[in-house]
Amino acid sequence: IGSKLPHVGTTIFTVMSRMASEEGAINLSQGFPGFGADPVLLELVGKYTRDGYNQYPPMSGIPQLRRRLAEKTELTQIYFPDPETEVTIVSGATEALFSAVTAVVRPGDEVVLLEPAYDSYEPAVTLNGGVPVYVPLNAEDFSVDWERVEKALSPKTRLIMVNSPHNPSGYVWTEEDIDSLATLVRDRDIYLVSDEVYEHITFDGRKHISLGSHPELRNKTFVCGSFGKTFHVTGWKIGYCIAPSDMTVEFRKIHQFLTFTTVTPIQYALAEYLEEPNRYLSIPAFYQSKRDLFAGGLTRTGLIFTPARGSFFQLASYGHLSQIGDRELAERMTRRLKVACIPVSVFYSDRRDDKFIRFCFAKEEAELFEALERLQGLP
Amino acid sequence: IGSKLPHVGTTIFTVMSRMASEEGAINLSQGFPGFGADPVLLELVGKYTRDGYNQYPPMSGIPQLRRRLAEKTELTQIYFPDPETEVTIVSGATEALFSAVTAVVRPGDEVVLLEPAYDSYEPAVTLNGGVPVYVPLNAEDFSVDWERVEKALSPKTRLIMVNSPHNPSGYVWTEEDIDSLATLVRDRDIYLVSDEVYEHITFDGRKHISLGSHPELRNKTFVCGSFGKTFHVTGWKIGYCIAPSDMTVEFRKIHQFLTFTTVTPIQYALAEYLEEPNRYLSIPAFYQSKRDLFAGGLTRTGLIFTPARGSFFQLASYGHLSQIGDRELAERMTRRLKVACIPVSVFYSDRRDDKFIRFCFAKEEAELFEALERLQGLP
Ligand SMILES: CSCCC(=O)C(=O)O
Ligand SMILES: CSCCC(=O)C(=O)O
Repeated sequence: IGSKLPHVGTTIFTVMSRMASEEGAINLSQGFPGFGADPVLLELVGKYTRDGYNQYPPMSGIPQLRRRLAEKTELTQIYFPDPETEVTIVSGATEALFSAVTAVVRPGDEVVLLEPAYDSYEPAVTLNGGVPVYVPLNAEDFSVDWERVEKALSPKTRLIMVNSPHNPSGYVWTEEDIDSLATLVRDRDIYLVSDEVYEHITFDGRKHISLGSHPELRNKTFVCGSFGKTFHVTGWKIGYCIAPSDMTVEFRKIHQFLTFTTVTPIQYALAEYLEEPNRYLSIPAFYQSKRDLFAGGLTRTGLIFTPARGSFFQLASYGHLSQIGDRELAERMTRRLKVACIPVSVFYSDRRDDKFIRFCFAKEEAELFEALERLQGLP
Repeated sequence: IGSKLPHVGTTIFTVMSRMASEEGAINLSQGFPGFGADPVLLELVGKYTRDGYNQYPPMSGIPQLRRRLAEKTELTQIYFPDPETEVTIVSGATEALFSAVTAVVRPGDEVVLLEPAYDSYEPAVTLNGGVPVYVPLNAEDFSVDWERVEKALSPKTRLIMVNSPHNPSGYVWTEEDIDSLATLVRDRDIYLVSDEVYEHITFDGRKHISLGSHPELRNKTFVCGSFGKTFHVTGWKIGYCIAPSDMTVEFRKIHQFLTFTTVTPIQYALAEYLEEPNRYLSIPAFYQSKRDLFAGGLTRTGLIFTPARGSFFQLASYGHLSQIGDRELAERMTRRLKVACIPVSVFYSDRRDDKFIRFCFAKEEAELFEALERLQGLP
């Protein structure tokens, strides 16, 4: 048939989750919560399904849920997108990212990707005929090297894809990062896709700053978010995109022909759940205690790391302990220590191996304790 | 921003549904059921949600549901795709169509579309750089003019998109249609995307014949289907694609980066629901009585039509009564008679207006009676 994505094999998330299950290992690889969501929210899905909210919702999402989102961003980030023309509900953040990229990238356009990068960015770009231009993040802390980004720009640059809190590193952009980006694109005709799916998971008092809240950037940015990541229901596949109305018009044209709409009873359930505006408040502390627990225990394993500033991932480096490849290490760890993780080389286009592995700590305390115990067995 | 889909405006389905609701009209425009789904199925969604089936399912869908689908096709159509390598669960048939087209169409490839055609086919083709080549269906009954199709083929033809039972005409392909297609593509390197979302809705003893059941065609075809259309839950956004394993490999690569997966509790609910293999049996009779009722009443309106052979749409022609444009007629009918329908010109790339309108009869009997009553007021 001739592949349009010849380099894509089975995703590492599937590979490692499968290996974990075969080996009876604790699965700290793929990023999904190991605990349940709020029963109140779950019950609402049952209610709306039973009550017959099962036909097509509006293409852009039900107005109530779009309004709740707009109010939330106002509450937490002092900006208020127009729910009618600037907010779209989609079938997961992956669809939001793909639709946003498809809306702007034309054949030959260059798109800057900061590496390590989530695995769906590149295919979204290349399937649209775009040319990815890779810029590595700073090696120490995975902050952005703005000079390198600037050097990577050309008259063909159409889009920069950014991600904070960052997967896999957990780095959270500072105000300076945002300002640097604003300066960089100020007089340039460049769009931004901002992957903010971990927006509510930040630590040590840090705040996530949405690109949508920046007075200059907001006019160029597709902000992509995820209800699944925020409310511990990754399998619900519901996310959103916030963008200025002219960009939203184009975004929706793509969304319309990709999936058309997103599951009706889940939209109603979330809209009712979010009538209580405090639903987001407890999330940072909830995850902070998990990060503290996990990072605390990790100090006793010999791995080197900086505690994650955000996201539910902890990066760690093992190069001082062993020089085996990260994929091999991840496999060995899964088979021998019975703890699965993600080798970070998969987040680089050239599979560069800096001897980093990624753990997901969105798990029950007992499971994290047990995993830490097992990791004592590291060479 | 520069639109990649400059000709796309608000879809007619949204336009007419909105007008219907503003006017308090009976909405026979957009295709969705006006009645509830089986409470047993609805309850299962509540159950699996409550029981914690809310994280990422496997990328290709849960094995149980893929197996149920494979068994079903065996039951009804004497073919048995391998659930592991040939069946993929996706977020609605729209995603199945878009992913299939994206998997095969490269810039410059020609894709044959038979008109009238559903509105998502063309954007899927053009967003992938493909060139749509339109072939009109036969004017009398919307069967396929195979000679015209053959004339439309060129060395650049990569794909033919077909649809039976057909939206908007209700035409159901015969064995001869399928054989003609098989002959046509026999010695050609052409793929097929087969939109079979109305597969279970056929009348007067007709049987839907899946392209997947044809020994030659099945090796070239992406069969796209919809649980939402079949089980009266269009808002659940869950569909599938069946294709040979080499094509499924490429299909899944696209699906993975478009939406990655499809709502977990809904997959489990459908899988359990379909453990009872007879769930499909009552559907044709259920819809036949609606078609009979609606077509019976329509004879008294002065409209000219052939009763639909399948799908839940009834086409009707009004050119002998009035020469106003079909969009204007649909609007007038909605505002004055309080019955909304779809003008069929929107299903043609050149908006050709043959004075046809489309009614959706997937409604409660009382609503259909009332609509028919109101349609007596036609000019
Ligand atoms: C879509 S599966 C992967 C989930 C995730 O975001 C991750 O593990 O990085
Ligand atoms: C996706 S909205 C349109 C539903 C439909 O299939 C139709 O009305 O033709």
